[in-house]
Amino acid sequence: MFLFTCLINNELMKRPLILVTNDDGILAPGIRALVEMATQLGEVVVVAPDSPQSGKGHAISIHDPLRLKKVKVFTGVEAWECSGTPVDCVKLAKHVALKDRPIDLCVSGINHGSNASINILYSGTMSAAMEASVEGIRSIGFSLLDFSFDADFEPCKPWVRHMMKYALEHEFGETKLLNVNIPKAASGPIKGIRICRQSKGYWREKFIEGRDPSGQPYYWLAGEFVNNDPGDDTDIHALKTGYISVVPSMHDLTCYPSIETMRRLESSDTKKFQE
Amino acid sequence: MFLFTCLINNELMKRPLILVTNDDGILAPGIRALVEMATQLGEVVVVAPDSPQSGKGHAISIHDPLRLKKVKVFTGVEAWECSGTPVDCVKLAKHVALKDRPIDLCVSGINHGSNASINILYSGTMSAAMEASVEGIRSIGFSLLDFSFDADFEPCKPWVRHMMKYALEHEFGETKLLNVNIPKAASGPIKGIRICRQSKGYWREKFIEGRDPSGQPYYWLAGEFVNNDPGDDTDIHALKTGYISVVPSMHDLTCYPSIETMRRLESSDTKKFQE
Repeated sequence: MFLFTCLINNELMKRPLILVTNDDGILAPGIRALVEMATQLGEVVVVAPDSPQSGKGHAISIHDPLRLKKVKVFTGVEAWECSGTPVDCVKLAKHVALKDRPIDLCVSGINHGSNASINILYSGTMSAAMEASVEGIRSIGFSLLDFSFDADFEPCKPWVRHMMKYALEHEFGETKLLNVNIPKAASGPIKGIRICRQSKGYWREKFIEGRDPSGQPYYWLAGEFVNNDPGDDTDIHALKTGYISVVPSMHDLTCYPSIETMRRLESSDTKKFQE
Repeated sequence: MFLFTCLINNELMKRPLILVTNDDGILAPGIRALVEMATQLGEVVVVAPDSPQSGKGHAISIHDPLRLKKVKVFTGVEAWECSGTPVDCVKLAKHVALKDRPIDLCVSGINHGSNASINILYSGTMSAAMEASVEGIRSIGFSLLDFSFDADFEPCKPWVRHMMKYALEHEFGETKLLNVNIPKAASGPIKGIRICRQSKGYWREKFIEGRDPSGQPYYWLAGEFVNNDPGDDTDIHALKTGYISVVPSMHDLTCYPSIETMRRLESSDTKKFQE
């Protein structure tokens, strides 16, 4: 009975293990804000890229070896820098840095810039969180709508802490992943949190064309985000009206309604192709 | 009336424009098989990476300029090699190589290796096709379950041609994107086509650890695919039983059933955080 009580107490006293990562690199101010909030809620281990990895999507390093090095970046917090992509960081965190210890929550960010709407596809921040969710770990990607290096993360900190606490205490329903975007400080006080769907949008690309010193042409990706979704239940709408957007997101990309439509292709004359 | 008839005839005679790309690089045998089939159905333009880009997911190049060069790789077919990722290729194809001409179909592959189940996230082949679908272009990513460079693409060619022809003539329902995987030739004759959902699976990673010539540790990503989905309506099941799997896929990652579950977070006391 004594042993049982001790075990219970031990379990109750055990702080949850929170993995923190990002795509802007381990020295970005955004991850510092996230680490600060996470340490108030649990034991924190940081595994983050050693250089900026924005726009890396769900890339992994297959053809090259990876480096993983323990670094002193955050006072009193175990931290590792990794030479790979954000998804590489999560894989290395689990199996090397944390030696397969169970992770209670993975948080990624706070990203400098929006990952709302279609940006979830390109975002290393969101892909890192998604990678953890594929392995059954509850995960949140946080992004602030401010690209600048000296973005003001102060106003969003209590909100981020609140959402992390919620995630430690509650399931998300059918998914394990949240895409959280936060209006920038200069837009005025945050009005609240809205649960949203991903807005239908895309990037209208523009390439900056130029010539390099040897006269060869180059193309540099630029462009502007186009939202062509008039819905008032989207992440873009929430953000425009001063709210934090939370989109429960997932990695099952099946378009279920199209399965029946596509059956016509299934019934094709297979014999014809086997001859 | 004469002018009208001419316009109609001209329209009828216009061959559809098919963009071909991949992630294994412009010299891979898989893209050669795809180009061969596509030229039977329309005007083909190839824009593909100048080096292997497997596992690049939806990565884009933000911090570096891109190269795009016209090359003679396929007899009688306009082809460009690009220094970027598969998604970069699609963006450059549309705006630079094709100067915003409307694309009727984008096909990516044929990938050397499976992109079924969770592999859709990591795959450059699928991300290229998805990128085109985001811009409203019907797209198919094709993959053969054979990693080897000298994989035998012959048996799948008529099937690939058949699916491309279908895609030129029919909508896919609510989506624009198909993830097509094909059993390897050595598995026996292809039995037919099955419309499927994405199987629930993940990669159980293993890192090969070693020391570089200067004694520093490195980690090299390895692992094995784990399918923990017993369903007989999945892509993995179709492939195992000798069928081509076709998963209608999409880029709206919203987990709709979780929206209601998460409303609890919405009703949090916002005032408390504004002070």
